[in-house]
This record gives sequence, structure tokens and C-alpha cells, in this order.
Amino acid sequence: MERPRNISRVVDGVDRVDDLVDRRPPSVTLTEVAQRAGVSRATAARALGGYGSASAAARDRVLAAAAALGYRPNLPARNTRNGTTTTVGVVVADIASPFFGQSTRSISDAAKAAGLEIMVLNTDEELEAERAAVHLLLDQRVAGMVVAAASRTDGRHLAQAQAEGVPVVLLDRRVIGLDADRVYADNGAGAALAMAELIGQGHRRIGYVSSAAGPHGHPPGAPLVVDELVSSGGDRIRAYLAALAEVVDEPTRYLALCPFGEEAAYAATRELLARPDRPTAVFASDSVIALGVLRAIADAGFAVPGDVAVVAGDEPAWSRVTTPPLSTVTQPVAALGRAALELVTRRLADPTSPCTDVVLPTTFQARASTGGSVGA
Amino acid sequence: MERPRNISRVVDGVDRVDDLVDRRPPSVTLTEVAQRAGVSRATAARALGGYGSASAAARDRVLAAAAALGYRPNLPARNTRNGTTTTVGVVVADIASPFFGQSTRSISDAAKAAGLEIMVLNTDEELEAERAAVHLLLDQRVAGMVVAAASRTDGRHLAQAQAEGVPVVLLDRRVIGLDADRVYADNGAGAALAMAELIGQGHRRIGYVSSAAGPHGHPPGAPLVVDELVSSGGDRIRAYLAALAEVVDEPTRYLALCPFGEEAAYAATRELLARPDRPTAVFASDSVIALGVLRAIADAGFAVPGDVAVVAGDEPAWSRVTTPPLSTVTQPVAALGRAALELVTRRLADPTSPCTDVVLPTTFQARASTGGSVGA
Repeated sequence: MERPRNISRVVDGVDRVDDLVDRRPPSVTLTEVAQRAGVSRATAARALGGYGSASAAARDRVLAAAAALGYRPNLPARNTRNGTTTTVGVVVADIASPFFGQSTRSISDAAKAAGLEIMVLNTDEELEAERAAVHLLLDQRVAGMVVAAASRTDGRHLAQAQAEGVPVVLLDRRVIGLDADRVYADNGAGAALAMAELIGQGHRRIGYVSSAAGPHGHPPGAPLVVDELVSSGGDRIRAYLAALAEVVDEPTRYLALCPFGEEAAYAATRELLARPDRPTAVFASDSVIALGVLRAIADAGFAVPGDVAVVAGDEPAWSRVTTPPLSTVTQPVAALGRAALELVTRRLADPTSPCTDVVLPTTFQARASTGGSVGA
Repeated sequence: MERPRNISRVVDGVDRVDDLVDRRPPSVTLTEVAQRAGVSRATAARALGGYGSASAAARDRVLAAAAALGYRPNLPARNTRNGTTTTVGVVVADIASPFFGQSTRSISDAAKAAGLEIMVLNTDEELEAERAAVHLLLDQRVAGMVVAAASRTDGRHLAQAQAEGVPVVLLDRRVIGLDADRVYADNGAGAALAMAELIGQGHRRIGYVSSAAGPHGHPPGAPLVVDELVSSGGDRIRAYLAALAEVVDEPTRYLALCPFGEEAAYAATRELLARPDRPTAVFASDSVIALGVLRAIADAGFAVPGDVAVVAGDEPAWSRVTTPPLSTVTQPVAALGRAALELVTRRLADPTSPCTDVVLPTTFQARASTGGSVGA
């Protein structure tokens, strides 16, 4: 169970998120101070830092220029006591994946507009790597961090960051017991729409392929505790199972939880397709998974959607260039990134306000990969 | 003309690059010191930093633990005089694109193995944004930077970074007049292989679509100076034109240089396909461009490869899930990232050695998108 939230705010329109973004102008840079003082950047840095050699005249000009421009020396090296930098840490599972690539890019754009910059660290969904990343960001004295948490159940390292006064915003995934600002898409609603489409077309043997259980996958035969999966995946699976439970007796029959990555998804899909009562449709939890699913279907000699319909749980840039084009649940990825950065800056401005959930809507985009009627 | 290089080293095998990566263990963290001392991280930080309140006993334990572990306080806040951080800046055109997403991820992995972390900044191919990014990284006192430079001809901001003692490694793109370590793929050789395949199949009307000329595209009618394009794009175009010049009279006839992004590539391709003597093949300079090219071909009612064969100048993860699968020039993207980080650490270790070029091989992967014979 999740602890009750102080405030839960659902933003129904993406536009409203844009309105929230703080668009402070970037702060005055050392370069601008140097230009106004008519000295090199190196001289300006020495004069402002009080180290190395700079003539008294140059130093006076630099200090006057800094005062005139309102230069705020927010270099790391200036923050010698309890100070933080203008850096926001971003901790994601895989920066090379479309979802995290695009959301990180969006965080970066919003940070730039707010006079901040981002430091990106990659975890490969491993909790140990995430702990190390968070500690490193604390050592770097980041202003805040945006984390797509690898574990649903262990957020102690994140609570530690909060205890040290560093805002933590959870992106895409909730963490049980952690009272933090969170931004995620309504993945359950999107999955329900996709399932309604498939079930409406007559599909009953619908597979679900996801790397929802960390780097090692879900052990075969182990009881499935959806609340222990990352919440974005868990929300999709809950919607998938709920929809199937309405029409079949054994909704978990085609639920395949595999280790992280495209190759694992490929293998899991091949296994599903090798069954005598193979699925007639497959729901791929995200676009990396979908790559493995599509290759597995082709290599097994089946056609999409004639033999197997396919849906992906997020929308990659390439969804319209497959043949047939891929039906997807569409998340507002750019808006997720903007909202995450916005929550960091709000928390910095007001450290004690109740935590906020920003839940962005998803849609189902039917394309030809779910266009067929169900065969035998 | 490029200035002569002190050393030009071509690495023919990707494996050799891996051997070059410095695999120092990550340095001891504040967390480890705190654990050994049996105090909280916050207490350890205060004790080591000499600020705030910590009991004398706690301080003694922390200092003893730090000494025993060989803790090197490399926090930004510790580097108060001329010091740099353990951060490597990464400046790319679009972190959400497959090429830069994967190479940035690879830089991140290699940095982690070397006890460093990365700060990522995005430029959208705009020189002004790149200048601001470089100055920001200098303000942040990064240890070094990896830059996919927006401009082939203006590297003054990069030279300034070097003058301030910060290593600059050029990724993917050379900058005229800048004496820096560089790592890039042999894009000219890959493009030549792709063109040989197309010409061997009988294609003569071969289009080339690229956003090779920055955010605003190449002005229609303006003379094309290939040396002013970013070098990876320029190398491909030079190979494309050289191959076509062997078999047609007017090799620039189907050369379409458009602004940055998929939509511009879509529009440029629609224009090529609307000509009465439309191309029978299209070379898309990279995978973002290829998305626009493939959509434009489909929307114009043509089939791949029957009506129009397609090649992409780099290999996205989705190249095998299009129908037909996409023929690509394959770059060793992960190795490019590893080599870039390696060049940063080498330069830090030896600031005065001659600059190095690491040129990684490309291959051409023929798939079904170039599988047809040429129609009419």
C-alpha cells in the first residue's frame, strides 16, 4: 500500500504543465562579467576567486562589472559551506531508450530555461547502481534530483537525500513509503484503452511482455506481487489483468516478465509464440520491449496483425515507420520532463509544502498493428 | 583545409578501443566513510568540511575513517582553488536521437568505470547554444568535455576551453583549425559502400537527404561548401557526390539539405518525390532523417524498395523492425563513446602529448530496403 498523499493533483491538460514551468532568465555568466570588464575569462575568474595573479586595476574592473551585472558566483567552487550547485541530477534506467532519452532531453530543455543544468546518471535498473548514483549526486551537492527509481519498495537512499535537504522528484515511478513529489503518466488508463481495443476485436489469448522485474526478471513460479514492480509497469499489468479477468479464466497465463532489455523480450516472445495455444495479440510494455517482440514475431514466421496483433505501452519515434504502423499508448513524454524539472524548482522555492503528484493523461493510438480481425 | 595533425591513428578493431579505457576503481565515497565511522552521512560531511555541528568524538572517528579508506574529498565544494571536479561535460546536438543517445550512454558507462560522472547539455545544432554550454561547463570547472560541435568552422569557444586547461574531445565532428583529440567513425567509407550497392543495382537517380547545414538548412541556390558542413555529414556527402560523379553528369541534382529534424526531412523528401524524374533511391544521412524519409515515401504512395530504395547513414535500434528492414551504414556507436571518454582521461594524464585521432570503421549492412531491382 502507498501511504496517503497530502495532495494529489491530476493535470488533465498538457498545456497546463507548460504554464507551471519557471522561466527565470539564466543567471549572469562569468563570460559576461569578463566581457564587461574587458578582461579574459581566466583573469575574471582569478579576480573573483581571489587566487592567482590579477592586477589591482583588473580586479577592480571585474568586481565593478560583477556588481553592475548582478553576478551571482554560483560555481561549485564558490559553494564552500553547505551551498549547492545549479545542477539537477537525473537518474534514469537507460538514457539510450526512447522514453528516457526524450524525457531527459525535456528536463534538459526546461533546466536550461530555468538557468540550471543537468547531470545524467544511468542505472540499468539496478538498485545498487542507483544508490551509488544518488550518493554521487549528494557528493556533488546537486540542487535537486529527478529519479526514475529502480525499486518500488526500497527508497531509503532517496529518503536520505531528502533528509540532507535535497529535493527528490520521482519520474515515471512511485516508491512505496517515500513522501516525494512525483510525475508520471496514467499508464493504467492507457493500458486499459489498449486492452479494450484488443478484447473488442475478439482477442482472448493476449500476451504481455515486460522487463518489469529488474535486471534478473521475474523468477519462474515465484508469486507475482504487482506492488513490488516499478509502478509504471505495475499499473499497466494491473490494467491488463483486470481487463483479461473479465473475459478469461486464467488472466496470468500469457504474462511474461523478463529481464531488462530487447534481447530478453525477444526470447520471452519466442517462448510465448512456440506454445500450441500461442497468443493472438501481444502487449509490449514499452518501445524497447516492442523491438524484441516485433523481431520475435517476424523470426517465428508470423505476420502482424494477421497472426499476432501488437500494442506498445509507449510511443517511440519509429512507431509510424513499421509495416504495419504500431498501435501505441501515447505518453506526453516532453511534458513529463518539464513537469519533473518544475517540481524540483518548486520544492527548492518552498521546501515544506505538501508533496504533489502530477499525473499526465495517456491516450491509445490505434494503428494498423491492431487492425486485423482475430483469426482461428 | 584541416591543419595537419601531429598524430593520426586509425583503430581498425573496436576491441582495441576497449583496451584503452582506464578502469580505475571509483574513489571512496562519503557514504563509505560515514559507514565506517558509524555516523550519518550528514555528520561525516560536517566533520570533513569543518562546518556545522559535530561532536569531537564523531569528528575524530570520521577523520580516522577517511584516512583509513584513503578518502579523497573530490566534492565540488572541496575544490576551492583552481581545482576541477570529477565531471566530464558532454555537449551534443540532440540527446533524444539514437546516435547521441547511445553514444552519450556509452560515455556515461565509461565515465562511471573511471570514477567520473557526466553532465549533459543539448544544443539543437545551434552554435550560440553550444557557446553557452561550453561557458557553463567552464564555470562548473569540469575536468574535461566531449563536444559534438555544431560548427565546422568556428571553434573559438572550444579553443578558449583548451586555453583554460580543460581538455576538449571532439566527437563525431572535426573542427577546422582546432588542435584537439577527436573520435569519429569513417563515415565516408560507409557512405561509399552504400552508394556502391545502390549504383550496382542500377540506381542513377539517388537522392540524399540530410540536415547537414544547421538549424536553418542550406539556403536554396547558395553555393555548397562541403567543408563548412559538420564533418560527419560532409564526409558522407563527399562520398555520395564522388560515387555519383562516376555515373551521372549532375551529381548534386538530388542533394537535399534541410533544417534540423525529422519534419524537415519529411518535407524535403516529399519535394524530391514530387519531381517528374523522382529519385529511385534515397540515402538518409542518419536515423532521425530516415524516419522522415520513410514516412514521406509511404505518404506519397510509394513502396520500399520497389519504388524507392532507402539507406540510412547510421543504424537505429529499429532498423530491423521496419518492413522491409532498413539497410544501414553501421557505426560502432558504443565504441565511439568509450573512446571519447578515454581521450579525455588520457589528455588529463598527459596534457602536452600530440593530439590523437581515433577513427573507427563503418560497415554497410544490406537489408531488404535496398533489396529490389530498379524499376522504370
